[in-house]
Amino acid sequence: MTQTVTGCMIIIGNEILSGRTQDVNLAYLAKALNELGVRMVEARVIPDVEETIIATVNECRHKFDYVFTTGGIGPTHDDITADCIARAFDTELEMHPEVVALIRRREAPPEVMESRLRMARIPVGATLIDNPSSGPPGFQMENVFVMAGVPMVMQAMVSTLDAERIKGSLPVRSRSIGAHLSESQVAVRLREIAQEHPDVDLGSYPYYRGNVYGTNLVMRGTDESELEVMLEKVRQMIIGFGVQPNEE
Amino acid sequence: MTQTVTGCMIIIGNEILSGRTQDVNLAYLAKALNELGVRMVEARVIPDVEETIIATVNECRHKFDYVFTTGGIGPTHDDITADCIARAFDTELEMHPEVVALIRRREAPPEVMESRLRMARIPVGATLIDNPSSGPPGFQMENVFVMAGVPMVMQAMVSTLDAERIKGSLPVRSRSIGAHLSESQVAVRLREIAQEHPDVDLGSYPYYRGNVYGTNLVMRGTDESELEVMLEKVRQMIIGFGVQPNEE
Repeated sequence: MTQTVTGCMIIIGNEILSGRTQDVNLAYLAKALNELGVRMVEARVIPDVEETIIATVNECRHKFDYVFTTGGIGPTHDDITADCIARAFDTELEMHPEVVALIRRREAPPEVMESRLRMARIPVGATLIDNPSSGPPGFQMENVFVMAGVPMVMQAMVSTLDAERIKGSLPVRSRSIGAHLSESQVAVRLREIAQEHPDVDLGSYPYYRGNVYGTNLVMRGTDESELEVMLEKVRQMIIGFGVQPNEE
Repeated sequence: MTQTVTGCMIIIGNEILSGRTQDVNLAYLAKALNELGVRMVEARVIPDVEETIIATVNECRHKFDYVFTTGGIGPTHDDITADCIARAFDTELEMHPEVVALIRRREAPPEVMESRLRMARIPVGATLIDNPSSGPPGFQMENVFVMAGVPMVMQAMVSTLDAERIKGSLPVRSRSIGAHLSESQVAVRLREIAQEHPDVDLGSYPYYRGNVYGTNLVMRGTDESELEVMLEKVRQMIIGFGVQPNEE
């Protein structure tokens, strides 16, 4: 068995916790990390509170191989992530010359420039994460990757992460199949199949669409041939119930 | 100042962490809890792993006033939340007679009935959370509320929570106003306004829609009259930049 490389996401933002904004970064990052061989094994949504951010970053960076934060790296008073990361690593913020140059390239009145230059404050020892969407970069401090919260910008930053920077293991592959059967109908046989393949995660997810109910069965593992064997067992189980499997 | 009553959500589910399924329960629950006077101050997404669920529940139930879990209370092998809650509280699961009766009301072959009856296993000492969407209930164990992960079912369970059961404080109210201004343009004045109202959370959220950018400013607090005063200051700031405020 290969070692799992673990990732944890820290979503920083009152607007997510208040329910005003729907997070979409978790699903995006989970898929992107998987392609790099990193398994997202936990995510936390925390408020824009300095002590909470510092404590969460310090707990998670020791607990997981990689940590990814989103949110709080803009130019306003509620953007405190860089300050918190510096404090978590017991270091200082410095004006990063490369980011200063990038920001100064676009002209602005002095007061506006001063606010924008807040985004050049990078913890000593960090390396930059490019931002191809234009605008200031994120940064990496040891195993912690600090990125923007705006999905378009976050996705642009994620697109620059590669195997040079993130040492992953095997990506997880999946198979899924659905049927117009209740979870209770398939439960006994499903448990047997799961026990025959302990290295594969077999999930059972009921759905309701109007008056139609059914169950989606999802297999996740790193061994494609084992997934195929398992998929065939689940397919035969469904057919055994006299139901047509739904394979999209 | 009134005391804040805190809530933490624990989203249990590999399907959320893999990115396959987009969570929508957090935003829904955050708004519902707010109406009950409970502030969602943290959310965690964790995998279907027994030790992780137990450790997370035990940490969070001591740290926050209320904890709400979603997911893992169905009839299949990957539904282990009830077992974990029992272990977290150092108690046993028992067949709850009321739930057994509910489940038996709908006939099924013995094997299917046996799987469905798994959902009648409730920790000793828990009280039920009704499920008006039909189907088995959730349950409450001290300050921990255990609910389904399927959004329709979860929402039905949430609809039964009331002030009898959850002792909240004042709900947070909000005002929002947007403008075609960058965050950097408003940063200095915004910081001043935020400092003048330390009890109100003033968030600044940039947006990009096609080629149009702008910033939404959101004020959150429990005092409606203070929110109105603050909103007027922000409105005047926007007008001062020669821009039309956008108040939807």
